Amino acid sequence: MSIPGDERAGRWREHICQLVTTVERMADAHWRCLYNSGPMTDITSDYQLRRDTVLLNHGSFGACPKPVFDDYQHWQRELEAHPGGFVARWHQRMDEARAPLAAYLGTTPDQLGFVTNATMGVNVIAHSLRSDLRESDQILSSDHEYGACNNTWAYTCSKTGARYIQRPMSLPVTTAEAWVEQFWAGVNPRTRVIYLSHISSPTALTFPITEICRRARAAGILTVIDGAHVPGQRELKLEDIGADFYTGNCHKWMGTPKGSAFLYVRKDRQHLIEPLIVGHGWHAGQVSEKPLVDYVEQFGTRDLAAFLTLPAAIAYMHEHNWAEVRSRCFKLACDTRHRIEDMLDTEPLCPDDPAWFSQMVAVRLPDRLNAAKLGQALRDQHKIEIPVFPWNGVNIMRLSVQAYTTQAELDILVDAVGRHAKECIG
Amino acid sequence: MSIPGDERAGRWREHICQLVTTVERMADAHWRCLYNSGPMTDITSDYQLRRDTVLLNHGSFGACPKPVFDDYQHWQRELEAHPGGFVARWHQRMDEARAPLAAYLGTTPDQLGFVTNATMGVNVIAHSLRSDLRESDQILSSDHEYGACNNTWAYTCSKTGARYIQRPMSLPVTTAEAWVEQFWAGVNPRTRVIYLSHISSPTALTFPITEICRRARAAGILTVIDGAHVPGQRELKLEDIGADFYTGNCHKWMGTPKGSAFLYVRKDRQHLIEPLIVGHGWHAGQVSEKPLVDYVEQFGTRDLAAFLTLPAAIAYMHEHNWAEVRSRCFKLACDTRHRIEDMLDTEPLCPDDPAWFSQMVAVRLPDRLNAAKLGQALRDQHKIEIPVFPWNGVNIMRLSVQAYTTQAELDILVDAVGRHAKECIG
Repeated sequence: MSIPGDERAGRWREHICQLVTTVERMADAHWRCLYNSGPMTDITSDYQLRRDTVLLNHGSFGACPKPVFDDYQHWQRELEAHPGGFVARWHQRMDEARAPLAAYLGTTPDQLGFVTNATMGVNVIAHSLRSDLRESDQILSSDHEYGACNNTWAYTCSKTGARYIQRPMSLPVTTAEAWVEQFWAGVNPRTRVIYLSHISSPTALTFPITEICRRARAAGILTVIDGAHVPGQRELKLEDIGADFYTGNCHKWMGTPKGSAFLYVRKDRQHLIEPLIVGHGWHAGQVSEKPLVDYVEQFGTRDLAAFLTLPAAIAYMHEHNWAEVRSRCFKLACDTRHRIEDMLDTEPLCPDDPAWFSQMVAVRLPDRLNAAKLGQALRDQHKIEIPVFPWNGVNIMRLSVQAYTTQAELDILVDAVGRHAKECIG
Repeated sequence: MSIPGDERAGRWREHICQLVTTVERMADAHWRCLYNSGPMTDITSDYQLRRDTVLLNHGSFGACPKPVFDDYQHWQRELEAHPGGFVARWHQRMDEARAPLAAYLGTTPDQLGFVTNATMGVNVIAHSLRSDLRESDQILSSDHEYGACNNTWAYTCSKTGARYIQRPMSLPVTTAEAWVEQFWAGVNPRTRVIYLSHISSPTALTFPITEICRRARAAGILTVIDGAHVPGQRELKLEDIGADFYTGNCHKWMGTPKGSAFLYVRKDRQHLIEPLIVGHGWHAGQVSEKPLVDYVEQFGTRDLAAFLTLPAAIAYMHEHNWAEVRSRCFKLACDTRHRIEDMLDTEPLCPDDPAWFSQMVAVRLPDRLNAAKLGQALRDQHKIEIPVFPWNGVNIMRLSVQAYTTQAELDILVDAVGRHAKECIG
């Protein structure tokens, strides 16, 4: 009998490597059981982030706990084992993910569609409104918005002649009422659409969008809310917010794998939806009863596993008492920003109120500080990853605190900022 | 010391399950080494498809060999372990996948962008041309095109007033020359764009697109070629084809995971590209030097692992002498369609020439046969998955033969068709 020796050896080597990995992981788990203590350790070990770096930039990318990540790769193997059978149950499986997401977000499944990320959600809406916007129309927004989505609206305006207006919103913020009044003063008879972040990207502020949406509805203005950073970080009940369109990432703070987000469109606005990527779901001269599925989700063969982990991600948060996790993270975020702002004698950008922020906070740094230099010192000398950047005349360090973040890591941050701040002020 | 007993037990149980799986796989590999023979067995066992079903529908979804799939899930773990570091090397990593793909496709990396699937590739082009198409313009195509992409062009026409014309192309096909003449007779002074499949989806025919592209270029007509089924199934040298735009799936016949495709745009047509999903790469009033990256690939956080497997997928085909695999599959496809067409006394839709088909062939069934009924009998009584459908007055069974397909499976198909054909003719 002839067996190709090299191939056989290769195959055995591969399996022995897997065995070694498994044994190593058993040893690691055992070690964690024996030596770790405190209620947060277990949940920290669920995250697969490298532990040789202090990762305080959760807001940019998110992170996925192991049970959810395992569910992800499990669904991928299912698809691979029987693509035809998997695709035949495509709608059913997406609906099995949609239903718990709708319950979690306080809405109904028929008002939710899945998109890759919030940027894509904003693009679907901007593309849909392209048919409707006229040269005299204005889209009112703030100057705290995310760059990619500013580009999206600028592109839509380049096609329609409408104007995208980014109203300057002052810092520090004081009260929700003052914020609403300042923003609303930008509304005029040409305002057709209001586009706002629910939590702003550079300044990590939660804007009082519920009142904006209420006023806009009364004034006949469409509202598009970008909740990229919201689901999982804040309690979110979409029906209470009252936006016409709302998009949010699940992969940032809900713990699903990267590339999983939703687009909410109120039932009475769904006739406005047009397909950004036209596939099997759109047909000339016909109108879909479920445009969020037919026009938004249907665009050919792809890996849908990230969406299918939503039941596992929601269950994970439930099992780990997420309200408590969030409250602990908020306290750590508050405390850390105070320690840094007190040390550097800077004025906070918002009050210590969970209405303004939750697990992500913009820590103010001295105006004369070289933000890039400090960011580099933290990264190169202390292996701390955190965004540090100048924004509209103030210097910001955007701190994210997630379930896996430890007090020790925040101490390392405060200590490192204290060591380097002086040399970065010129 | 207090260790939560249930959690600890759960963790150990999980690791022991993994150990058992690993040992089972070692045993399985050992068994395969000892008892299997013949050159195809090893490659068949590389595919993770369920083996209790005869899967002859590779053309619809593709399948990914285990070494490539492992590479996929490895990249996902890398992203998960350090998202910031991964994203910082995003461009570099995509370029490391782009370079071997360009070499494999006979073109240069600066003419390739990554898209989710060929439907998305067609959408990027149709969306880009939307700015340019006028009411008097015509997009000429054939009646053998894929439904989702017909919808894409119909949508573009609904926005521009241009007309999408699907020229009826007769069956059986005879010679490339006759096909080109019949198609070209549809060209008129209003023809602005020619859109054609390279391999058609319902009829699995390879169209003589090189000559069409040559004539179109001379006539100043843009060519958009949908090669959804081509890469990996046929030798593809993009520079020799001479299309302006060409999109192809890697996940069908190159063996990458689902959701990996490319869009080729000739350097001198790249100024026409507009972003379908606007992200960080597009800026109002600026023109990108690399629109396939900036306008096509950049749209926020997502899982890019499928693209990063391209080096592994190309290496896999190389290591397994893919020219031979393809040639064996072509012979099996030829032989199987003959056995079925001889048995049912039907006229082939094309000559037995690799110019017309490769690993996927449209087997003609009797015109009076109930295609749905036969498809169901094969599926329910024989666990055979293969598309059987009526198309433009002929009945087609679209047979796919990939590296993992065995003669025994094709015998089961022929036998089952023989058993059920009569009862399905009414």
